[in-house]
Amino acid sequence: MSITAQYIVQQLTQSKQAQIKTQGTAYAPVNIALIKYWGKRNSELNLPITDSLSVGLKTLGTHTSIALCDGQDHITLNGTLLAAEHPFSQRTSRYLDLFRTVPSMGFVVDTKNDVPTGAGLASSASGYAALVLALDDLFNWQLDKTQLSVLARIGSGSASRSLWDGFVHWHAGEQDDGMDSHAIPLTQTLPDLRIGLLTLSAKTKPVSSRSGMKQTVEGLSLYPAWKNMVDTHLTQMLPAIEQADIAQIGQIAEHNALAMHATMMSAYPALCYWLPETLATLQTIWAAREAGLACWATLDAGANVKLIFAQQAQSEVEALFPKVQIVQPFS
Amino acid sequence: MSITAQYIVQQLTQSKQAQIKTQGTAYAPVNIALIKYWGKRNSELNLPITDSLSVGLKTLGTHTSIALCDGQDHITLNGTLLAAEHPFSQRTSRYLDLFRTVPSMGFVVDTKNDVPTGAGLASSASGYAALVLALDDLFNWQLDKTQLSVLARIGSGSASRSLWDGFVHWHAGEQDDGMDSHAIPLTQTLPDLRIGLLTLSAKTKPVSSRSGMKQTVEGLSLYPAWKNMVDTHLTQMLPAIEQADIAQIGQIAEHNALAMHATMMSAYPALCYWLPETLATLQTIWAAREAGLACWATLDAGANVKLIFAQQAQSEVEALFPKVQIVQPFS
Repeated sequence: MSITAQYIVQQLTQSKQAQIKTQGTAYAPVNIALIKYWGKRNSELNLPITDSLSVGLKTLGTHTSIALCDGQDHITLNGTLLAAEHPFSQRTSRYLDLFRTVPSMGFVVDTKNDVPTGAGLASSASGYAALVLALDDLFNWQLDKTQLSVLARIGSGSASRSLWDGFVHWHAGEQDDGMDSHAIPLTQTLPDLRIGLLTLSAKTKPVSSRSGMKQTVEGLSLYPAWKNMVDTHLTQMLPAIEQADIAQIGQIAEHNALAMHATMMSAYPALCYWLPETLATLQTIWAAREAGLACWATLDAGANVKLIFAQQAQSEVEALFPKVQIVQPFS
Repeated sequence: MSITAQYIVQQLTQSKQAQIKTQGTAYAPVNIALIKYWGKRNSELNLPITDSLSVGLKTLGTHTSIALCDGQDHITLNGTLLAAEHPFSQRTSRYLDLFRTVPSMGFVVDTKNDVPTGAGLASSASGYAALVLALDDLFNWQLDKTQLSVLARIGSGSASRSLWDGFVHWHAGEQDDGMDSHAIPLTQTLPDLRIGLLTLSAKTKPVSSRSGMKQTVEGLSLYPAWKNMVDTHLTQMLPAIEQADIAQIGQIAEHNALAMHATMMSAYPALCYWLPETLATLQTIWAAREAGLACWATLDAGANVKLIFAQQAQSEVEALFPKVQIVQPFS
């Protein structure tokens, strides 16, 4: 019998029933994966096939408050109360089902993203992390963060990494129940690191990451070679972070991201999140790099490009991409 | 000791010395690989890691005449006599070195391509096939076509397939000397098949296929999964051709081509032959296919897109791409 998400939630929260507060509130940052999460070994629990590693964007993320009500959930996203049939409401309510201690329990959720929803800026990562933190606050469970990482992962895989700022390593784990599949923050900081966001499209992506992964992992594709690549990238990335080597970090991250998109493109039908502008932007970066600019790119399952560079390259990056939004993950 | 190209040429031609003609002439068609050749096990002999399979474009190809002279070669490409330092002359003369029976022997080569040189339309395939056929004519060797396929392969891997019209299967072979690595034509014809050429760029590609292959095969990339994919595609493609199933042929060919580009994109630095227009064209095809158009795409190591469809879809394809150049490989 397979282990259900409901069982995991009960295991973690059952013995923690305490004085419920009138409201729980939380904030969680977006994270940008430098080594991507792509492919699940268990899709109910979002257990990944490989480890992944990210950096939090600190000042960009999701603010969420949650309270109890009777009956139906009321879900407000970025100031708009959503209909119950809205895909965002449906997915959120389905997740909240795991936490209702009586069937009539409803939730009033108010959530606000600093980034466009569904455009490959990983708003579901910060979203589920903030929701879990808010639930912990509301129910007063006082779970530790690795346990909250397990709960967030059940909402959205990459949310497991959004419980912390800075570099975060999500260990794939081996257990069937996934209790060892959670993130752990790294202690290293890298104040010179800059992440540049280029929003080429704020439209919701046509294929969710969830079904995109399924398509690339299950059909005939180049995915079988992905796991080894991630293993190699991880063994290169950890010392690169240790040594504060931004060039090496950028190089590995770009290689890893493009290989993830390559696994999608090698499925049939091909899964391609890119727009022609995405490719044009990558070619601009590659040409600038040939000319000496120390800047690398990463892309999640979407059309937008994120830049990785050091503080020293900032003015050149801004000259090349006047609309870039620059984040300092460590200050 | 590794087997040299010189040794292979001697083995095949030494006993064939006959009355030399004053001129040899030949024509060979361009071929479009439906299952791509990507990756070598021996780069001097152009021995491939996998089989590949193509269709010849019959009326598009290379016309070559060759004669002997004293001293330096004289190489004319598309009506222009090239300087000895021109990359095309250098590569051609280096190949012709294999066939000089005395060091002072020079060649006068006049070659004319029906397609732009170096833009991913495989002019080197028809070029080396025509050159080998012209040499066979000049020297009057009367080699059989599988032997000529071996000689053409030494000039350019995919040239091994340009000795015939129609569907051609290049068997990778296993021998160190590559004498079993040559193409064999299939007997099936498919008069309804159409190939549409979309020339998005006639510029010479920035990275030759030769060095592109090396970069993707030798570094960390998704290439390790490519061989299995080709094996699967080949076992699907042969019955699809047998059954004259153009939809199945198109589907396998598109999957295979995009996976080849995916292997390139998964190298570091990424190798990307596409232009933004290439991606826009693919997305146009995918959208049209969603809407019911039976048309598939393939791309070689270049920015241009080739369409695969049946005669019945021709008017719709022309409406979608007014500049398309349509070839009938079997009529």
